[in-house]
Amino acid sequence: MRRTAFFLSDGTGITAETLGNSLLTQFEGITIERVTIPYVDSPEKATSAVTRINDATSRDGAPAIVFDTIVKQDIRDIIMSSRGVMFDVFDTFLKPLEEQFGISSSYTSGKCHSINEFSTYHKRIESVNFALENDDGGRQQDYSKADIILIGVSRCGKTPTCLYMALQFGVRAANYPLTPEDLALPGLPDTLMAHREKLYGLTIDPFQLASIRHERRNNSRYGSLDQCEWEVDEVEKRFRQNGIMCINTTHFSIEEIATRIMDDVGLARGVA
Amino acid sequence: MRRTAFFLSDGTGITAETLGNSLLTQFEGITIERVTIPYVDSPEKATSAVTRINDATSRDGAPAIVFDTIVKQDIRDIIMSSRGVMFDVFDTFLKPLEEQFGISSSYTSGKCHSINEFSTYHKRIESVNFALENDDGGRQQDYSKADIILIGVSRCGKTPTCLYMALQFGVRAANYPLTPEDLALPGLPDTLMAHREKLYGLTIDPFQLASIRHERRNNSRYGSLDQCEWEVDEVEKRFRQNGIMCINTTHFSIEEIATRIMDDVGLARGVA
Repeated sequence: MRRTAFFLSDGTGITAETLGNSLLTQFEGITIERVTIPYVDSPEKATSAVTRINDATSRDGAPAIVFDTIVKQDIRDIIMSSRGVMFDVFDTFLKPLEEQFGISSSYTSGKCHSINEFSTYHKRIESVNFALENDDGGRQQDYSKADIILIGVSRCGKTPTCLYMALQFGVRAANYPLTPEDLALPGLPDTLMAHREKLYGLTIDPFQLASIRHERRNNSRYGSLDQCEWEVDEVEKRFRQNGIMCINTTHFSIEEIATRIMDDVGLARGVA
Repeated sequence: MRRTAFFLSDGTGITAETLGNSLLTQFEGITIERVTIPYVDSPEKATSAVTRINDATSRDGAPAIVFDTIVKQDIRDIIMSSRGVMFDVFDTFLKPLEEQFGISSSYTSGKCHSINEFSTYHKRIESVNFALENDDGGRQQDYSKADIILIGVSRCGKTPTCLYMALQFGVRAANYPLTPEDLALPGLPDTLMAHREKLYGLTIDPFQLASIRHERRNNSRYGSLDQCEWEVDEVEKRFRQNGIMCINTTHFSIEEIATRIMDDVGLARGVA
């Protein structure tokens, strides 16, 4: 069985997509083609979306599933004329919220992911710059300004996690790679120990690490299982010795690693 | 009037947070404190969440709003015993979806933002690495592998947009800063024109550019309004001359810039 799901929005489509995907992953054994159509903000675009929904419905022999966060009623009316099954996110939840708050919602389209406050936008950009400048042990003198410093062996997931924290939450995350040279010495480098309370460890299954490294540098010592096992072993020993919280990234997505770390250390999700 | 909203999840909390924030931004003139509690996956954590919900309700003198994407019924039952008003995302939408598909949902907690397919995870990480290596005009010989190449003056938003595209959608986005030296010559650099069909322009209001640059390097020529006006003018001229699509980033968030560009050029949102 094959079905098609549409995520429709008059804005970025991120809310419809996020919600829709969360719901659809609860269903197994069904092939669902996913189509996001953002910026459906004119009757022409709505009509074109209806054509695509109806085409998918005919092709699949069953109605397309439509998750929609369109705010304007005239646009939504056009979408509702399609043969798809509507999951109208705002319609479902805005009314009970209006009752709770005792006021009407502003029905301003695309408000969520637009720049509501310049300071928020600014904080994210600034955090991305911080992550880039303090990536891979770059500028260690900035650690006093960091919210968190991720440490671990090369290719265990530090950089994407730092960037995700910066972009999604406006968190200033630095990272420092523990190199074989660092691991040949006892303990942790002084530059790190000076910020002991901000350190958070990442670790990874040595097999997965070897496979990631192998792809990057074929047949090098860097990617050998022996080397990976030794590095992971040494790094985990140091986390234990110094009581540094850590997460094994092997089976987690970037979102999970980032949110679990922030939850562990009690970092606020500033800019969601 | 002040109210508190909770985003509760047995996973990352990203779905509850995204949906809840989209809905709450539709209400103006009300101060809403937002609290995300991820990984509510045990009766103990659920009970602790209930305490926080009830405390907020007492403090505000009105029920807390609770957006919840918890899948397990026993955990959800505990949350339902709170004095908050529940907006139960899965409960609302899963039943009609089950009817549509004619199958039961798997009710597996935290499925969406976990690693469903290693290849997807891998594609994102790989795209982040690509964005970093091809940031700021870095490795121009990789442009043949790029999905898109963003061009524009320094500090107009290229880097965060590339990183967002990589992390959120697994898109390989390179970027090249058009420097004053580039802009002193006619046309666009040959390395770029060789990939003309992948170029996408970013532009920005010169006043905002000056303010961003000023903060970075106080009182430099780089941050002077004259210089910013000249650069933006020259860059926009080249976009027009070469028929390069472009977006003015001044009033857009990173999500909006990224999704609008992808919509413009028809890039698929691979990993949503």
